[in-house]
Amino acid sequence: MKFIKLLIVGLVQGITIWPEPASFKTKNEKIKVGRLRFAYSGRSTIVKEAFLRYSDQIFSHGITGVPRVQVYVEIEDENSELGSKMNESYIVNMKTNEIFISSKTQWGILRALESLSQLFEYDAGDETYYLTLSEIQDEPRFSHRGLLIDSGRHFLNVKTIKAMIDSMAYVKLNVLHWHLTEDQSFSMPSWQFPELSLNGSFSAKERYSHYDIKDIVQYAKLRGIRVIPEFDMPGHTSSWRNSHPEIFATGCLDPDSRGAFDPAKNQTFELISALFHHDWFYLFPDAWLHLGSDEVPTTCWNNSIDLAFMELHNLSSFNNLFAYFVNSVVDIALQDNKKQHIILWDEAFTSGSPDPNKTIIQIWHDDVTNSVLDAGFQVIYSPSSAWYLDHLDTNWTDRYTLNIPDSVLGGEACAWGETMDPSDIEATVWPSLAAVAERLWSPLHLTLNLTTAESRLRQFRCILLDRGVRAEPVGLAGRTAPTGPGSCLYSD
Amino acid sequence: MKFIKLLIVGLVQGITIWPEPASFKTKNEKIKVGRLRFAYSGRSTIVKEAFLRYSDQIFSHGITGVPRVQVYVEIEDENSELGSKMNESYIVNMKTNEIFISSKTQWGILRALESLSQLFEYDAGDETYYLTLSEIQDEPRFSHRGLLIDSGRHFLNVKTIKAMIDSMAYVKLNVLHWHLTEDQSFSMPSWQFPELSLNGSFSAKERYSHYDIKDIVQYAKLRGIRVIPEFDMPGHTSSWRNSHPEIFATGCLDPDSRGAFDPAKNQTFELISALFHHDWFYLFPDAWLHLGSDEVPTTCWNNSIDLAFMELHNLSSFNNLFAYFVNSVVDIALQDNKKQHIILWDEAFTSGSPDPNKTIIQIWHDDVTNSVLDAGFQVIYSPSSAWYLDHLDTNWTDRYTLNIPDSVLGGEACAWGETMDPSDIEATVWPSLAAVAERLWSPLHLTLNLTTAESRLRQFRCILLDRGVRAEPVGLAGRTAPTGPGSCLYSD
Repeated sequence: MKFIKLLIVGLVQGITIWPEPASFKTKNEKIKVGRLRFAYSGRSTIVKEAFLRYSDQIFSHGITGVPRVQVYVEIEDENSELGSKMNESYIVNMKTNEIFISSKTQWGILRALESLSQLFEYDAGDETYYLTLSEIQDEPRFSHRGLLIDSGRHFLNVKTIKAMIDSMAYVKLNVLHWHLTEDQSFSMPSWQFPELSLNGSFSAKERYSHYDIKDIVQYAKLRGIRVIPEFDMPGHTSSWRNSHPEIFATGCLDPDSRGAFDPAKNQTFELISALFHHDWFYLFPDAWLHLGSDEVPTTCWNNSIDLAFMELHNLSSFNNLFAYFVNSVVDIALQDNKKQHIILWDEAFTSGSPDPNKTIIQIWHDDVTNSVLDAGFQVIYSPSSAWYLDHLDTNWTDRYTLNIPDSVLGGEACAWGETMDPSDIEATVWPSLAAVAERLWSPLHLTLNLTTAESRLRQFRCILLDRGVRAEPVGLAGRTAPTGPGSCLYSD
Repeated sequence: MKFIKLLIVGLVQGITIWPEPASFKTKNEKIKVGRLRFAYSGRSTIVKEAFLRYSDQIFSHGITGVPRVQVYVEIEDENSELGSKMNESYIVNMKTNEIFISSKTQWGILRALESLSQLFEYDAGDETYYLTLSEIQDEPRFSHRGLLIDSGRHFLNVKTIKAMIDSMAYVKLNVLHWHLTEDQSFSMPSWQFPELSLNGSFSAKERYSHYDIKDIVQYAKLRGIRVIPEFDMPGHTSSWRNSHPEIFATGCLDPDSRGAFDPAKNQTFELISALFHHDWFYLFPDAWLHLGSDEVPTTCWNNSIDLAFMELHNLSSFNNLFAYFVNSVVDIALQDNKKQHIILWDEAFTSGSPDPNKTIIQIWHDDVTNSVLDAGFQVIYSPSSAWYLDHLDTNWTDRYTLNIPDSVLGGEACAWGETMDPSDIEATVWPSLAAVAERLWSPLHLTLNLTTAESRLRQFRCILLDRGVRAEPVGLAGRTAPTGPGSCLYSD
């Protein structure tokens, strides 16, 4: 009996759902489950593929078949659009041998299945799966919950991005902010201008095809994750210069300098417009688009052409020229009826004059938050002090305890790529990303106890490892290997 | 034309097979391939599953279908046993639109397909796969080419081990040496003694089921990889003590001390025999077995029971008692007709008296190599100075330039688990493991040019990343993230 008791303690200890649902009651009863049979009469591919995926996930140690448990699925609208307005709420109820899942949309079902999957435990001794009977009512605190990845500073291949999307779904994130073009490399495909990636990428193996992009966007969609590309401009564009120097300001044509697009030239906007409307928007169906606008080397514009252009258009400063550029590319992008909002980094607000009806500001400088909100902008929150995942010394509690203004759309953790490539991105991002994700999903009052959160996060780390996600130990600096032998629950 | 030229340079630069085949000639001609059709009339599941696996691998950016290229496959004996004597040689020839693969055994076909897969390149611009026409005749330099993983110091879940097996196949390794039991944890299942893992594992989630073990062994077999388990004894066994203190020497029963099995008790050998013959050998069909015997805390035997036993049996030293123990468990293991050899760490030679007809010595102390060979033992070479992958300061050239005695069976790189768990094992092991693998496979004379090898290794690292293997940059210390933006070819 001693061993059975130990076993049960072990199992009970392991029960957590991350992020914590709005309401979650366990019935202190476990049932054996050998197989799930989904009773679903709808036609949503998203839902059907999710059943297969979660069955594989839950029964990863082989399927025993009996006992079979019926899962009844109800969805109000199974054709809801993937986007900022999607309803992700869901309800899970259970009786012995029956599970009931209901939601407003197919996206809610995905979140329900994720929660359900975390309630299963595998007992290696009797090779049996146990499900803790529970009741869940859940919905996200914020609608925008994202991760930024940066394939400009290191190329992130398709497998790496898909693995990241898989793991994002485990913590109910719903936006992959894909920072695609950078000073260092250009890997985006273009039918019209193939020279951009031919000359702008790190190597022949470090470019995306159109197929790759569509594949990733579809893969994310199946998991309820929007892909919002960022084409950073007018700065962070040096890699474009390898093939199209004609759209760059003449002040910074030296290959060793950081370049900036030239607002004084029609060619600049013509190229951008052609890329948007006849190439890239075809690949990225989301209604939102990110156009960067951060850290512009405005000194590039200190030359006779741009100074003359400024005088002609009554632009009295480089900031005015910057504002002119940003407002122009925003308008170009919004010529597409399907695009509703353009996201810009907060420099667009600080140094420019964006339109709050057209643009959303992503904040990385904490100190501008109030003025951006006061000016009537919708805001995506990702302060560098807490949510930059490349800041390895920021610990998980700093990320977890960040005060998020109630009025923002949500936020994003940012995995800037200076030292992240496919070899280490996952181990750098996790488990930090889980801390951010819970604060964005769970009701505030359920995320205030750090002791409970830490214990749950350690358990969740074990779940991540079991699913093949390289999550480093909780409580160490980012990207730090375990310091000695021990459990996945790792404690110093 | 400028862009096309750049493209071709990029492609040619990317061609390498790692490890370098014994004979490899490229015809300086590339053909487009949209699909492979395997002409194979045999019945080997190993071969058929490999076709599917490599088709997925090669056409990972979507299958275009045309042009279809025929692959003719010839195997002399497709039912060759997986083991130390298997023939892995193969020949690949190509004409435009036809590929010919032949081998002595099904295992040779696996190696051929791996080489073939590395000759394909994907052009993201025209979404086309190119194959460099080549001729290969290849066979391994050493028959035993392994990786040691340590699931005793950190639990390595099934997904992690399968990913490791996948990547081992990429460099034609053929032995997974699975160090399964340790002082720190016991995660092996047992039908007869379930308490061993119930009380010996880190947590309920950190145990293998019988299903898991069989699953891993079968997964490895499909890739031509033997799984040789190591049940380290009489030392490195403290985790057994949690449930079976009765088989431990009374000198070290304190839970804080490192324990050692007690050779003076029949119970010790009875438990081991029961585990071997009625539990574990069922799971591990390989003819070889590893029984550890390293770093024994012989002070545990300094007690009245063991001293009396030694006197009774004319054992004049703890080394003699150690030899008695080791020879006894070797004989117990060999009672199974299917077991042919027992592998022991070199302490068994230095401090004991093993039988060279029954045992194979695995060397980790470089300085005993000659005396072990002179004594007539078969040897597996894994000197800690060069091939311990947890030694992060050993760089890849140290691993690559190790002088391997011609008369050894082969060698193993050792990924000891003190600081390796599922979060970092892959990034620690790679790309170091590639260096070891090439030296074990390729003819010596093809592995002497470090400049060429480094350039090829950088290219191979890009292949690894593309396949989802977290290989850290070449040229940095082990487990080191890239230090700044750049290509997968990473160069300081």
